[in-house]
Amino acid sequence: MKALDRATANGILYTDQYELTMAQLYFRMGIHERVAQFDHFFRTYPDYGAHQAGYCINAGLAWLLDWMQQAHFRDQDIDLMRGMRDRAGGPVFHEDFLSWLRHDADFACLSLRAIPEGRVVHPDEPLTVVYGPLAMAQLLETALLNLLNYQILVATKAARIYEAGRGRPLLEFGARRAQAEGANAGTRAALIGGADFSSNAGISHVLGYPPKGTHAHSMVQAFMALGEGELGAFRAYAEVYPDDCLLLVDTINTLESGLPNAIKVFEELRAKGHRPVGIRLDSGDQAYLSIQAAKMLDGAGFPDTQIVLSSDLDELVIWQIVTQIEQEAPRYGVDADALINRLVFGVGTRLITSWGDPALDGVYKLVSVYDRGKWQPAIKISDTPGKTLNPGYKNVWRLYDRRGKATADLLALPDEDPRTMPLIHLRHPSDATQSRSLSQDDISSIEPLLVEVMAEGRLLVDTPGIEAMRERRRQDVELLDPGVRRLVKPRVYHVSLTQQLWDLKQQLIGAAR
Amino acid sequence: MKALDRATANGILYTDQYELTMAQLYFRMGIHERVAQFDHFFRTYPDYGAHQAGYCINAGLAWLLDWMQQAHFRDQDIDLMRGMRDRAGGPVFHEDFLSWLRHDADFACLSLRAIPEGRVVHPDEPLTVVYGPLAMAQLLETALLNLLNYQILVATKAARIYEAGRGRPLLEFGARRAQAEGANAGTRAALIGGADFSSNAGISHVLGYPPKGTHAHSMVQAFMALGEGELGAFRAYAEVYPDDCLLLVDTINTLESGLPNAIKVFEELRAKGHRPVGIRLDSGDQAYLSIQAAKMLDGAGFPDTQIVLSSDLDELVIWQIVTQIEQEAPRYGVDADALINRLVFGVGTRLITSWGDPALDGVYKLVSVYDRGKWQPAIKISDTPGKTLNPGYKNVWRLYDRRGKATADLLALPDEDPRTMPLIHLRHPSDATQSRSLSQDDISSIEPLLVEVMAEGRLLVDTPGIEAMRERRRQDVELLDPGVRRLVKPRVYHVSLTQQLWDLKQQLIGAAR
Repeated sequence: MKALDRATANGILYTDQYELTMAQLYFRMGIHERVAQFDHFFRTYPDYGAHQAGYCINAGLAWLLDWMQQAHFRDQDIDLMRGMRDRAGGPVFHEDFLSWLRHDADFACLSLRAIPEGRVVHPDEPLTVVYGPLAMAQLLETALLNLLNYQILVATKAARIYEAGRGRPLLEFGARRAQAEGANAGTRAALIGGADFSSNAGISHVLGYPPKGTHAHSMVQAFMALGEGELGAFRAYAEVYPDDCLLLVDTINTLESGLPNAIKVFEELRAKGHRPVGIRLDSGDQAYLSIQAAKMLDGAGFPDTQIVLSSDLDELVIWQIVTQIEQEAPRYGVDADALINRLVFGVGTRLITSWGDPALDGVYKLVSVYDRGKWQPAIKISDTPGKTLNPGYKNVWRLYDRRGKATADLLALPDEDPRTMPLIHLRHPSDATQSRSLSQDDISSIEPLLVEVMAEGRLLVDTPGIEAMRERRRQDVELLDPGVRRLVKPRVYHVSLTQQLWDLKQQLIGAAR
Repeated sequence: MKALDRATANGILYTDQYELTMAQLYFRMGIHERVAQFDHFFRTYPDYGAHQAGYCINAGLAWLLDWMQQAHFRDQDIDLMRGMRDRAGGPVFHEDFLSWLRHDADFACLSLRAIPEGRVVHPDEPLTVVYGPLAMAQLLETALLNLLNYQILVATKAARIYEAGRGRPLLEFGARRAQAEGANAGTRAALIGGADFSSNAGISHVLGYPPKGTHAHSMVQAFMALGEGELGAFRAYAEVYPDDCLLLVDTINTLESGLPNAIKVFEELRAKGHRPVGIRLDSGDQAYLSIQAAKMLDGAGFPDTQIVLSSDLDELVIWQIVTQIEQEAPRYGVDADALINRLVFGVGTRLITSWGDPALDGVYKLVSVYDRGKWQPAIKISDTPGKTLNPGYKNVWRLYDRRGKATADLLALPDEDPRTMPLIHLRHPSDATQSRSLSQDDISSIEPLLVEVMAEGRLLVDTPGIEAMRERRRQDVELLDPGVRRLVKPRVYHVSLTQQLWDLKQQLIGAAR
């Protein structure tokens, strides 16, 4: 895309057309400045088919805030809108509305509360809450969903892959299989969720993480075509990168060519006082090959070299490989723990696409309108009870049990504080027959999750660095019950309503019917 | 992301780190300006699990060419690379290489041949062929794969969805579920592949297609919260958009509330001389509801109004809905063909994510290096015979049978022209036992597919508009055998090698082993 076109495509018109037609309608009806509140939440955890998430990792907020602060109606945007025609040939957008957009419409009128990036989050709880004039709050919808949904999806997948890899380094390699420039958001989310580094150079530099990468099969092929062979390619690599020498050993044959050649070059490096870094396996049976590689590298006196695995990995594949190594390595005289502790996982396609479930069902719903001096909670009823909205302005509290593990997230009305309730009644969001009660004795602590991040366009908090978000994620995941962390068929975490919020919801459902 | 950061993240460092480390290695070895050729191709059609593609639609090239013409090493990029340290604390990139990058390295040294966007393409055939100095041709890899793979994936999905909808209008609605700014590439590819319009406003304007959209549930909810109800919301919409009135009727209850209210408003519009456009159904049993909606709209004298269906549609869902309408509509006294002819499909998540297979396995492989006065074909052997490269500089020819239908794509050496061969021998790319022969009598025409698009950075062809690409796609899909067009278990289209190319491949495999 040309640079000028990019400014249009990624600016304030980076939105669905209906946000603009609704905004004009609100303007025309004189209700565009009524104050409204929208909740961003997702309804279900990613479900990858054979397995499913038991928690998600929140991500994306800082980039949404950046976009909100940059996006505004430029003359070019107004001209494009002015040029649109309805079916009778008249203008879709009228001059008074366009003038208002050009001069009065930006996101500096909006306020946001949000759960910080890196935190564990669950379905049906507001992750980001937007309030402000109806037209602009509506106009934010598409960009908000676009910028938040995907980063939550990838941060969640990264957290799962990191869990499967038992904390061994995880590299994000997915740029070539991402949705074009969505790759950059994917890299950022992967870093928040569990990746230690990424191959994607530009965005890694922007985020302060050195990009990682060594060489591809094509380097070996090029040397072969020039008559030099794999050993020549490896020697050249070692010459140029004597202290970063990590060799891809499967271009010809891993065990018969790649590994013997790599070990030869490693010995030459050692003789010159350098420490070789390791090898990468990008094909074949990676449990078997990594055991054989470890055996050969150990035998040559390189027990500290890394073994990087790549090629269509995801959390289940990594889990299987690690489990198989544990079982099989001893049969070959290889120490399984030592081998696992030298593994590094490079994950591309299946991380950046959230393979198995490539979209988070995050939505942005009107939950309240300020009218006649008070908030009027809004509801949308669905034939599927779980899809009926939790109405109104809400707080989200996380309750920790006596072990210190998170036991439930509780949605409450703004004047309720579960910390002062002797007995906390937790209602299932839609099933009237399901509830439980917790006394303060059952609880070690209670924490509010939503933070005020923006007041009428002004940032209230400094954007934390990626490292702080990673640390939050590590802490929050540690505070989950092991059953919730399980990769396959995890235990269901409770997101509940207070009795008062439940009552309000039932009352609105009754009134709407 | 901040604007300055975006310039870094989307500029020439929009690449995997290993492209940079390999480029430095080629520079250090003095082979960075050896001329090499890389092929971009995919190995398998998208496989959506329960169904799979029988053809793909090529897309993405123009944006790749734009990127190549803009990307260059700025001082900021060089500084970021200069700051990188190896494990011994030394610089990863050395000053001579950085100086070369800053002053001599851009993509103006590269030449490209490509199959035009919008054309039907198949596995294992080069879609884009890059040749030029080894270092820069290598450096292009990540961006090329990132920019082409995704657009091919979505154009292909769009073509399938369009087929399922029997040519009825298809709207792309996926911005909120895309990988952040990848949404724009998704919209473009969807338009090339089969979507008629998109909801994504900015990129639609850039591409010259008016964005489409009316209103969301939130508009009805807002009016309800303000005490006005659904009818009030519809009336407001009709007042503001009397000639573009398309109403979403499922916020409360489609048949009992939404449709009666919409019909009331349509009657009011008609009385004022306006023609209502139609309704949108975003939930429920969309075959049943569209039959009932048609019946009600017909009964009220609005047989020409559109019925827009949205909500988790894809090619199989649309195929089922259309098939069911054919079977069920007559039982309710509704003309099935007339109903199908008023349908419009709005497809979001499952189009923009290519639901079921969210990544194309497109690769970029070194196939030849120019050395000692001639092209040295390069090969990479795989244990999976189908993954062994088709080596060297190749042309791609499409053969049409006597019905005028495409019967095979043929990869040939540059000095071969199947138009002059009395008998064309078509070899399976990897299975020695499979081949067939065609005489010129069996063939109605033979067409070369690759076009020279760039010579040393200079564009050789004007970039066609999206409409021309759409027209190519329509023509090429028409020229496929119906079995290849089938949505489920399509017939396998032949991509074959000439005898000479087969012989070269076998010779290289033998030499490498």
